[in-house]
Amino acid sequence: MMRALVMRPGSLRVETRPLPEPGAGQVLVRVLACGICGSDLHLFRHAEHYRDAALQAGVPAAVLDRGVVLGHEFVGEIVRFGTPGDSDLAVGTRVCALPFLRGAYAHVPMGATPFVDGAYAQYCLLDNANLLPVPASLPTDAAALTEPLAIGLHAVNAANLTREHDAVVIGCGPIGLATIAALAQQGRRAIVASDLSATRRALALRMGATRAVDAATTSPFADLAAGSAGRPVSVFDCTGSGSVLETCIQHAPHRSEIVVAGISHGSAMITPATAVAKELSLRFVSFYSPGEFADALQMLASGRVDWRPWITGTTTLEAVREAFLSLADTDGHVKILVKP
Amino acid sequence: MMRALVMRPGSLRVETRPLPEPGAGQVLVRVLACGICGSDLHLFRHAEHYRDAALQAGVPAAVLDRGVVLGHEFVGEIVRFGTPGDSDLAVGTRVCALPFLRGAYAHVPMGATPFVDGAYAQYCLLDNANLLPVPASLPTDAAALTEPLAIGLHAVNAANLTREHDAVVIGCGPIGLATIAALAQQGRRAIVASDLSATRRALALRMGATRAVDAATTSPFADLAAGSAGRPVSVFDCTGSGSVLETCIQHAPHRSEIVVAGISHGSAMITPATAVAKELSLRFVSFYSPGEFADALQMLASGRVDWRPWITGTTTLEAVREAFLSLADTDGHVKILVKP
Repeated sequence: MMRALVMRPGSLRVETRPLPEPGAGQVLVRVLACGICGSDLHLFRHAEHYRDAALQAGVPAAVLDRGVVLGHEFVGEIVRFGTPGDSDLAVGTRVCALPFLRGAYAHVPMGATPFVDGAYAQYCLLDNANLLPVPASLPTDAAALTEPLAIGLHAVNAANLTREHDAVVIGCGPIGLATIAALAQQGRRAIVASDLSATRRALALRMGATRAVDAATTSPFADLAAGSAGRPVSVFDCTGSGSVLETCIQHAPHRSEIVVAGISHGSAMITPATAVAKELSLRFVSFYSPGEFADALQMLASGRVDWRPWITGTTTLEAVREAFLSLADTDGHVKILVKP
Repeated sequence: MMRALVMRPGSLRVETRPLPEPGAGQVLVRVLACGICGSDLHLFRHAEHYRDAALQAGVPAAVLDRGVVLGHEFVGEIVRFGTPGDSDLAVGTRVCALPFLRGAYAHVPMGATPFVDGAYAQYCLLDNANLLPVPASLPTDAAALTEPLAIGLHAVNAANLTREHDAVVIGCGPIGLATIAALAQQGRRAIVASDLSATRRALALRMGATRAVDAATTSPFADLAAGSAGRPVSVFDCTGSGSVLETCIQHAPHRSEIVVAGISHGSAMITPATAVAKELSLRFVSFYSPGEFADALQMLASGRVDWRPWITGTTTLEAVREAFLSLADTDGHVKILVKP
């Protein structure tokens, strides 16, 4: 048996469940650490809404009553393969993995629905095909940042950056910091970060931002213009706030590309005529490719990313709810790791 | 002296003005034809607003009282160079030109402000550097379509189309038709056009659309999906309607690129979360490069564009106001040429 944190509308409860049984091509891992993602908070906050939507889509109530085990930013240790001899990796190897399981029809994300459990549990299942061994020199906590770092790497790869491009990163939460880290690897001349929080601005500078401005008082575009001689600009909106997009449209220089990497909810109002007059491009991005995921792990293993300040806390399955509350206070925390 | 159509808030009046005097690097041309653009209608409809904005920006009332001579889709005939011998082109040569005049600080658009008059007049000034001679075989009316065709060509060039991409063109006004014509030159497998007007849908098919659907009853995306085996799609929003953008976001396939070529006014509401989940790109475009302008003239000269159905009427300076009213009824007209 194992302990797992089960989410249902309005409740987060540690339950005892049978150890999951790995099928062919699958592996059982013991979870060593799992980061709390902003999307986990969102799924919890809107659990009632998602349940209603699933019911409407025809998912039986009995399935939904099972609850959701969240968690997709994990590091685990191999316990047992579904088919022994199915992998070159030895039992006990630490692994990261793309957080998807192959289902009958598609790759199903882990830790988002009742169908495939995530890693807020002592054990979980992974696909053998997705396993990436964690280099021995890399601490488990650092390896748990592979998934959010891959998000930032994907945002940067999606942008049409040339050597000449300067960058503006708006919002220095985990996605913004990952984006800054990925940009810094490229040796950009200017990476201007913007956030309301002094704590996060300090982190942005540690991640490789060349400047960090207070969003309450200073426009990152004005700050950039002061230092750049009309070089092209790529803007990364990592806030998840719909209103920031229009601010970018109004203030970004002509021909800028705005990469929207934060997930906002509801509608956003924009002014197309301004975007047309400036010939702006908006690129909406999500997730990453398997290659980008592997690159993120490699970046961490190379020692080129100052990952320690990202991790601002650890918690247990029992205290995840308190961690959610702490994270909602954006100033205090960046990433909290669950140690089941 | 010459006759020119002068626009002021609420009025469009033919006035007698002195013949403009070409400076160094400039040429005086006799206007043979000038197309009416949707932006001309817009400038007239909102003339009071633009006057107020100009006053606020510090333009003296006396300058604004001079009024605006609209018109930027013109063909002219060379009358006199500011500096004789300044060009290889002979007097009497028919010419098109990028509708900009070099000012002290910038290239100023013709026919949009009181500063540089457009071609709703018997004569106007052009920059020598911008002149493109009209091939002898090309009728003047066709050459007057160079500017709107360049708009469509630019929209298509701005898209990241591969050989595999299918295209959806929403809105079959002049910009939509130009976009279809430019797409058709590339020999695309599928170009699905969408418009409310049966007249415009018929024109879209003549321009090279492979299908034309009634926007009131059929989604172009559904129509496309029926015929395309999951090929990537580029969408061209040529409507100038803010609400169409959200429709595209909701219905375009994953990883589509949406090129916004129509100029809409006011705000548009979009759902970033949907655009993020689909990894959509929005590319806002305007104008064209000098090379694209020359290419558009070349396309017309090559005979590969069936331009005749575009021109649905001609008018005089005196009757431009009536033509504006006819054009506002979108079903009846596409392009009306002013013959001063």
